[in-house]
Amino acid sequence: VRNSNHYGIAGYYAEMAVEEGLIGISLTNTAPLVVHTFSREPLLGTNPIAFAFPTGGRYPVLVDMATSVVSRGKLEVCSRLNESIPKGWAVDEAGRVATDPKRVLISLKRRKGGLLPLGGEGEEFGGHKGYGLALMVELLSSGLSLGSFSYDTYSEKGGITHFFAAIDPAIFGDPKKIKKHVEVLIKRLKRAEKAEGAERIYLHGEKEYEKRDESLKYGVEIDEPTYQQLKELSEKLDIQIEI
Amino acid sequence: VRNSNHYGIAGYYAEMAVEEGLIGISLTNTAPLVVHTFSREPLLGTNPIAFAFPTGGRYPVLVDMATSVVSRGKLEVCSRLNESIPKGWAVDEAGRVATDPKRVLISLKRRKGGLLPLGGEGEEFGGHKGYGLALMVELLSSGLSLGSFSYDTYSEKGGITHFFAAIDPAIFGDPKKIKKHVEVLIKRLKRAEKAEGAERIYLHGEKEYEKRDESLKYGVEIDEPTYQQLKELSEKLDIQIEI
Repeated sequence: VRNSNHYGIAGYYAEMAVEEGLIGISLTNTAPLVVHTFSREPLLGTNPIAFAFPTGGRYPVLVDMATSVVSRGKLEVCSRLNESIPKGWAVDEAGRVATDPKRVLISLKRRKGGLLPLGGEGEEFGGHKGYGLALMVELLSSGLSLGSFSYDTYSEKGGITHFFAAIDPAIFGDPKKIKKHVEVLIKRLKRAEKAEGAERIYLHGEKEYEKRDESLKYGVEIDEPTYQQLKELSEKLDIQIEI
Repeated sequence: VRNSNHYGIAGYYAEMAVEEGLIGISLTNTAPLVVHTFSREPLLGTNPIAFAFPTGGRYPVLVDMATSVVSRGKLEVCSRLNESIPKGWAVDEAGRVATDPKRVLISLKRRKGGLLPLGGEGEEFGGHKGYGLALMVELLSSGLSLGSFSYDTYSEKGGITHFFAAIDPAIFGDPKKIKKHVEVLIKRLKRAEKAEGAERIYLHGEKEYEKRDESLKYGVEIDEPTYQQLKELSEKLDIQIEI
């Protein structure tokens, strides 16, 4: 898919496959936000990978992750809350580790500095691996579709590209047996001995599905500055909101 | 594929697809070496992802990476050289950050502690994302094949499982145009402004292909302790080696 725009949550499309009993994969490039290893220019997107696998339990396994350490949204939240960011999330215009989210967000607009790929700066903790994943997503979404690469998006129009795939487990074996089999893995991972100080071991998607269930029941929780922003917007646009 | 054994370099199989003009994907689980987020038990493997994409240039793009921060091999090298390891590569039997590679390698034999997933400890730098990638590999290799999960391998026999996929770019468009298109991305990434102190920006596979060319020309370079080990082994087994 090419010439698209922000497609919302990558995981949404992967989940659609699971509803049909399939394994879902959903990839997209994004606005240029990520500096690849040893660079200071944000040419790649946060290029998320979403992967959903049907299980025998209540929720599918849903991995839905930016291939950067964090997404831009996390910087925006810290910026609103006037908090600094940990060393290893982003770099400034010179490619040096940055701790001020406001500065990174401003320099990103001038296409300098940006978010670090998963694994962080350089190669010591595998930053080149996050770069490799972002590159993989870029090749499958923009490469195959002959669409815009992340660094060329949002110049005139969105120009975002996506890649979707669904795999039928039935090609490999009895889907019921496969579901039962993966439940064994899930249970074993969940009842692993916990690290010192850890409270709970999660499976991918679990936290989000529980939160979704909770939000549907009790409503969506937001922080104070976000509430203020929404309130100002609603007054400015003369829209009644119930919060 | 199930009931297999160590299959060597994951990238080798992905490259086979490229030789046929296809995109290659090769995944495998491994011996249990990786502690998933908030756990202290090594239940998952280093579960590498290999991805090869045909280009118009000399080398394909070849991403070939363990989904852990580092592979066990890196700990073995540091152990032989009597070096400590950086904080963030591995944890000890209690799930605490470890710096002594010998201790980690010993406790791994008792299935305690182990390598951290890409992104490191906890969730602050995206360790849960590396865990998610390892889980994805585990589901596609052991899940679909109804084979052994990493934590059940090497009990009686290897029991390793693999997943292979090849995607024909021709399904999406003219393969020649796609190759030409991705060359634009590759060139742009390579001539990006470098971070302070960085010497060169690499593309995935480039370093390895150059090294391969060099090794074929000049021979393979090894470190002193490895040389000694090889020498001892050759004397013990009475095998003539030329080094």
